[in-house]
Amino acid sequence: MKIERAFEAIANGRKEAERIGVPMTLAVVDAGGHLIAFARMDGGSYLTNDIAIAKAHTAAGSKMATADLEQAIGAPHIVASLSAATDGRFLVIPGGAPISEDGEIVGAIGVSGGSAEQDAQVAEAAVG
Amino acid sequence: MKIERAFEAIANGRKEAERIGVPMTLAVVDAGGHLIAFARMDGGSYLTNDIAIAKAHTAAGSKMATADLEQAIGAPHIVASLSAATDGRFLVIPGGAPISEDGEIVGAIGVSGGSAEQDAQVAEAAVG
Amino acid sequence: MKIERAFEAIANGRKEAERIGVPMTLAVVDAGGHLIAFARMDGGSYLTNDIAIAKAHTAAGSKMATADLEQAIGAPHIVASLSAATDGRFLVIPGGAPISEDGEIVGAIGVSGGSAEQDAQVAEAAVG
Amino acid sequence: MKIERAFEAIANGRKEAERIGVPMTLAVVDAGGHLIAFARMDGGSYLTNDIAIAKAHTAAGSKMATADLEQAIGAPHIVASLSAATDGRFLVIPGGAPISEDGEIVGAIGVSGGSAEQDAQVAEAAVG
Repeated sequence: MKIERAFEAIANGRKEAERIGVPMTLAVVDAGGHLIAFARMDGGSYLTNDIAIAKAHTAAGSKMATADLEQAIGAPHIVASLSAATDGRFLVIPGGAPISEDGEIVGAIGVSGGSAEQDAQVAEAAVG
Repeated sequence: MKIERAFEAIANGRKEAERIGVPMTLAVVDAGGHLIAFARMDGGSYLTNDIAIAKAHTAAGSKMATADLEQAIGAPHIVASLSAATDGRFLVIPGGAPISEDGEIVGAIGVSGGSAEQDAQVAEAAVG
Repeated sequence: MKIERAFEAIANGRKEAERIGVPMTLAVVDAGGHLIAFARMDGGSYLTNDIAIAKAHTAAGSKMATADLEQAIGAPHIVASLSAATDGRFLVIPGGAPISEDGEIVGAIGVSGGSAEQDAQVAEAAVG
Repeated sequence: MKIERAFEAIANGRKEAERIGVPMTLAVVDAGGHLIAFARMDGGSYLTNDIAIAKAHTAAGSKMATADLEQAIGAPHIVASLSAATDGRFLVIPGGAPISEDGEIVGAIGVSGGSAEQDAQVAEAAVG
């Protein structure tokens, strides 16, 4: 993914986060799950950093929104074990969404800072 | 375990995965839980890498299929805590199976990429 | 540090990196060493991600440019040992520079992707 | 990279390792640095596993043979610090080589088990 596409997604997400009045952290990764762009909005907590990055990593690897993935996996203890087995990088919580270009998934955004619903809403707004 | 035995298990598992049409990741470890052979089928996600390896590690160490281990341990919060305590390497999710030679367990295979049932099915096909 | 200040530093650094024709990765952290903003330019390697972040972390914590810190510490084996002791986060290689506001250090930028000299040059251009 | 290409590289590398009589561990990663295929030859040590994987990760990320990268970076303490900053994944030791398809780098192989020269020789034989 080109960096301009990554920053466009972050800008779109920030607009939605401002609209609902919640400071968010937004991370964009490439198809290999590696960070390209990142923004923590004023008032956001450093605790959200790794969470936003892990959601993006998960959405890029699974090619699914993490909200859908949560429903697909189901059992809470399996969700916890998968997190542990992947050093926390497989994070099955709403707020991650794949980014497509010409019908191909080229990476993903991960959003953290609000409720699960708010995070998912901002991620969806970000990827358009 | 000889490498040829490890690749044979992977080849058997791949055949079953192709039969059910799910791209899988398959990891074979020796009796010490260390990787000998590995294959991620075309279309498989990098998120499954650590999971397949952890399942193999768990099956080799416990000398049990991870599906049986899950039932033996039972309480979900214990499953999650064991994962955390072992840095994710003790992963009690179906899809790991010991590999035997002359009645002795010489290692294990771990499979990830489908549902828990599919992963276990491919692991069983792999070890024959 | 406000996010707009962080993005301004990244924009300044990117301009210098483009001028010298080297794709760089730039990370901005707050006074606590936690990521606020990040950009990996097109053509940059994922290997530079952790390095840029560690340089920023080191410059914010030491309130010094990492190039100066390297000279202050001196002995190479001490540099390597400090890295190991801090899980890699204390990284004494040129390319990190503190960011000030009203005479107070409010965070830092870390840059990776070129030679040590190029990284330091871009970091200096970024913080102005 | 397709799995068949990955196994072809491993088979080529094994042939060369057998020719020189050194049991090697060979790891192939995709362009994002994630494992696709792996083989530890009979007699190889589990200590080589992480090393082979890190060399492949480094060659894929830098798009260079790790032998060339070592000469480019130079100072030993910087090499050590880069390792620490990346949790050991940036490993600047000969034995990693990029894999190309149609002029594009699609991943890399990492080889460990012999001397630096032998590892590099097997990696080169693997990628053809």
